[in-house]
Amino acid sequence: MKRIAIDMDEVIADFIGKYLLHFNRSFNGSVTVEQLHGTRFQELDPQMEVYLHECLEDPLFFGDLPVMPDSQEVIRELSERYEIFIATAAMEVPASFTAKYRWLKEHFPFLNEMNFVFCGDKSIIDADYLIDDNSRHFKRFKGQGILYTSPLNMYETGFVRVNNWKEVREYFHSLNG
Amino acid sequence: MKRIAIDMDEVIADFIGKYLLHFNRSFNGSVTVEQLHGTRFQELDPQMEVYLHECLEDPLFFGDLPVMPDSQEVIRELSERYEIFIATAAMEVPASFTAKYRWLKEHFPFLNEMNFVFCGDKSIIDADYLIDDNSRHFKRFKGQGILYTSPLNMYETGFVRVNNWKEVREYFHSLNG
Repeated sequence: MKRIAIDMDEVIADFIGKYLLHFNRSFNGSVTVEQLHGTRFQELDPQMEVYLHECLEDPLFFGDLPVMPDSQEVIRELSERYEIFIATAAMEVPASFTAKYRWLKEHFPFLNEMNFVFCGDKSIIDADYLIDDNSRHFKRFKGQGILYTSPLNMYETGFVRVNNWKEVREYFHSLNG
Repeated sequence: MKRIAIDMDEVIADFIGKYLLHFNRSFNGSVTVEQLHGTRFQELDPQMEVYLHECLEDPLFFGDLPVMPDSQEVIRELSERYEIFIATAAMEVPASFTAKYRWLKEHFPFLNEMNFVFCGDKSIIDADYLIDDNSRHFKRFKGQGILYTSPLNMYETGFVRVNNWKEVREYFHSLNG
């Protein structure tokens, strides 16, 4: 059985969606997802970068992130034909460990927690596919990287790209002819 | 550069040492490490198994585990010739996440936290070597498993075995001629 490793933030959990909502509310802002396309928080507004770190260090912030549309259904389908692992770069935000674990158990109860991986450098992941919004994880990954579109990676080229979970379903469907 | 993945409990952290001390103190017992050789807590005394789970669920328990003799020195040496990752089955004890992270940062400050992996099923680990006291992790591991002797695995055969960190040093030294 082949194995798919799947990132959390911006792939199955809508971190930026919640972050933008809270940022705009706290700073009386009106930043849209579209304004983030291909940019960095720092470039758009240094205040956004500062607030980002506040969110990352708040253990509660990760607890109620919205689930990406169709991710539950598609991952459940894929789990019948593939071994599914969730691989998140949690070592960058140690405060998030427990909240991330609970979030996964709540929203993906059909996955075995023995298949959750909290890591930093994802080159340690032995899988056939890695679905991630951050292309840096593909550099030393031996399997096939699949870039999941997020506002920040919008203009990156040279990767297999999926824009949503329906496209993930199609990608793996096409592999099986 | 080849990569060594190293388990935590019973390999670099002396979980059983602290556990036995606390068990004997709490239950006015006199169980020795020798009595654990090749057995299971449950077989020796069902109370030990119950107390084990209490320890595993106590986030503070992992915070001050003794460091295995020579592990810091040998890992530091190995880190000059190998990529070192710490891979612990933390998903079995989610309460331990933060304490394990802090313990690693305290006792192995020369390791990069991006090389810490909290997982369950270690078949996800892509490394050339895995030093572990639990041989079940070697079954689907593609690299070379190295069984680190603990009281519970004392009589297991069929694996490359090291009894202490000086033997780990010798093992890797012999590989390099």
